[in-house]
Parts: sequence; C-alpha cells; structure tokens
Amino acid sequence: MKALGNHVLVEFYGCDSDILNQTELIEKEMTKAAILSGATVVSSNFHTFNPYGVSGVVIIAESHLSIHTWPEYGYAAVDLFTCGDSVDPWKAFKHLKNIFKSDHTATIEMKRGQLHDIEGELKHKPNAK
Amino acid sequence: MKALGNHVLVEFYGCDSDILNQTELIEKEMTKAAILSGATVVSSNFHTFNPYGVSGVVIIAESHLSIHTWPEYGYAAVDLFTCGDSVDPWKAFKHLKNIFKSDHTATIEMKRGQLHDIEGELKHKPNAK
Repeated sequence: MKALGNHVLVEFYGCDSDILNQTELIEKEMTKAAILSGATVVSSNFHTFNPYGVSGVVIIAESHLSIHTWPEYGYAAVDLFTCGDSVDPWKAFKHLKNIFKSDHTATIEMKRGQLHDIEGELKHKPNAK
Repeated sequence: MKALGNHVLVEFYGCDSDILNQTELIEKEMTKAAILSGATVVSSNFHTFNPYGVSGVVIIAESHLSIHTWPEYGYAAVDLFTCGDSVDPWKAFKHLKNIFKSDHTATIEMKRGQLHDIEGELKHKPNAK
C-alpha cells in the first residue's frame, strides 16, 4: 500500500531516569538518531519541564522526530515520522533504545497519507512559491 | 485504562491546496488550535519546503501539535499529542478541519505510556533540577 509518510510510535519503558531528565543530552542524541537514520536535520527545539521531563522535536526534511519524557516513570514517548525511501527510522529507534537504556519497548508502525484515499480527488495544484 | 498521554493522529484529505502551502497562516492557526484546545503554548517552529509543503511543530506544556502538508495532494498529516485532563485535542481538530477546508478526514486516538506497563518497574526517581 503506497503512502506519503511512515510513522513509528515508540514507547520506551524502563529507561534510566536521570538520562530522561537531561535536555542537552537528549537533544544531541535525538539529532544523532536522525542523522543515523539517513535524515537531513532542519532544526531542533527542546524544552525542560519543572520538576521533571523533557519535550523536544527535531524537524527533518523528511518530517520529524519528537520526544516527551517522564523521568519519574522511566518512560519516554518517541515518534519517528518520515517520508521517502532513504530514511530508516529503525536505526533511530535502536540508537535511542541504547542511549535511554530502555529495558522494554512497544512500537507501532503506521502509514500516513494513504494514496488510494487521495488519488482522483485533487481540487487543484498549489501555486509554487 | 490509565495512560500518561493521549495521541490523536489525523489525516486531513481534500484540503485547499493553497492554504496548505502558506507557512505563516499554518503556524498562526496551529497555535490558535493549541490555545482553543486549552493547551499552554511553549514554542513553535515552522518550515517551508521547496517547491511545496510546510512542516511545523507547536510545543505545548502538555506535549505537542505537529503538521506536515503535501499541498500537491491536498493532504495534511496532523498529530495532537496531549497529556493531562485539561486539554481537548478535538477542539484543535475541529478548528484545523475548518481552516484547511478538509472534505474528509481519518483519525485514530491512542493512549501513550500505559500505566499498567510502568507501575512496579521503576528503577529510581530522577534527581529534580
């Protein structure tokens, strides 16, 4: 089934809680995960929450990688949203699993923008800028 | 079933292609959608792609709202990831559906970070900063 995007939703359970609270490290490793997966990094934007937790997004030319951490639960929610055939989100997954020392994970891989729902119903092409 | 996060994945099909190519408008309306849903906006970060398309994320205190648009297909992929009981992501959904003039949608609502997978397996609490 052809689709425009591929979306891997990851639950990292049983992580190292101190690592999940280190914003600079998480930003560095999320960016590295994007590069390892073959993506082109456009920008990144991370925030630290009080008293615990980090939220951040790496925007890539091929969509985005996002993370929200709950250090007090040893849990991180990561989304690996990519498009095109050149990016392998599972390389990002493996890298982050190691970094966070997650002892078990749950993943769902979904297609986004299924072409059979799109074709034949275009209203018009946009005007390129 | 208790969970830390709530994630609504939205496919907006049959949208106005020109609107899906307007980065400033999309950033403004995604931010407005966050506010309408009851979220607290922390930051936003949007990019225009050549020749078509917009990617962007609004980070909220309660997680994030993201978007990727394919104007040439009249399609936008939106994620509404929230936590806590005070945010209603469906208010954001309704606002964006109107703004994009989407004529049909597909949605999936998922729980993230299910507590029965977490409780009883904490390694330790993090050190608050």
